[in-house]
Amino acid sequence: MAEETLSTIYRDYIACLNRQDWPNLSAFVDDDVHHNGRAIGLSGYREMLEKDFDAIPDLYFEIQLLIADLQGVASRLGFHCTPQGSFLGLPVNGRKVRFTENVFYTFKNGKIVQVWSIIDKLAIEAQL
Amino acid sequence: MAEETLSTIYRDYIACLNRQDWPNLSAFVDDDVHHNGRAIGLSGYREMLEKDFDAIPDLYFEIQLLIADLQGVASRLGFHCTPQGSFLGLPVNGRKVRFTENVFYTFKNGKIVQVWSIIDKLAIEAQL
Repeated sequence: MAEETLSTIYRDYIACLNRQDWPNLSAFVDDDVHHNGRAIGLSGYREMLEKDFDAIPDLYFEIQLLIADLQGVASRLGFHCTPQGSFLGLPVNGRKVRFTENVFYTFKNGKIVQVWSIIDKLAIEAQL
Repeated sequence: MAEETLSTIYRDYIACLNRQDWPNLSAFVDDDVHHNGRAIGLSGYREMLEKDFDAIPDLYFEIQLLIADLQGVASRLGFHCTPQGSFLGLPVNGRKVRFTENVFYTFKNGKIVQVWSIIDKLAIEAQL
């Protein structure tokens, strides 16, 4: 699996999320996907994303920085959006906030199988 | 600059931090380094690291996952250490905690010139 291919797959995956194109999620995410060490599987992964869009109706994933090698992708994602209620335990309640997520993905047969994500909670706190 | 070289440079940089070998920091960090968008320069960078070791005497950087390409390095760092006072605004006060940092580095002429770091504050909160 070439590095360029993983970058390309990853950009297509992010486009899939931004379209909320859930029927196509299985083209990018493995059945046995783990998220931050928890085995949530493809259905749990889809559920997590659907809940994210429910909680943040204007959610949009913007790739700010992407580093890829033969095994995986690391992406710095930028967000400028409006969480409706509490977010990461913070009372955001419909305020528009900017924040980033630094996230690592490892792949198996061209599909995401492990995700290690950290969202910048400190940045959101500073805006409240 | 080959990808392998950036990985190698980065591993040597982390070894330099773990030795607290500040006189050698300039071999890895550019004079005009930026950290999370702030121009802190090499001296500010060294000061930041010295303060980290003052606040966390058993600080040790463990690379858990590393992705490198021609421009940069993304690293997931693991920590198991004992911040003495408040840390990221949390009253850790000498408790031993585990947490991770997802961090991106871009390089210029083989030296770190931009750092985008997010520490997993939620994980620390869950341990207090």
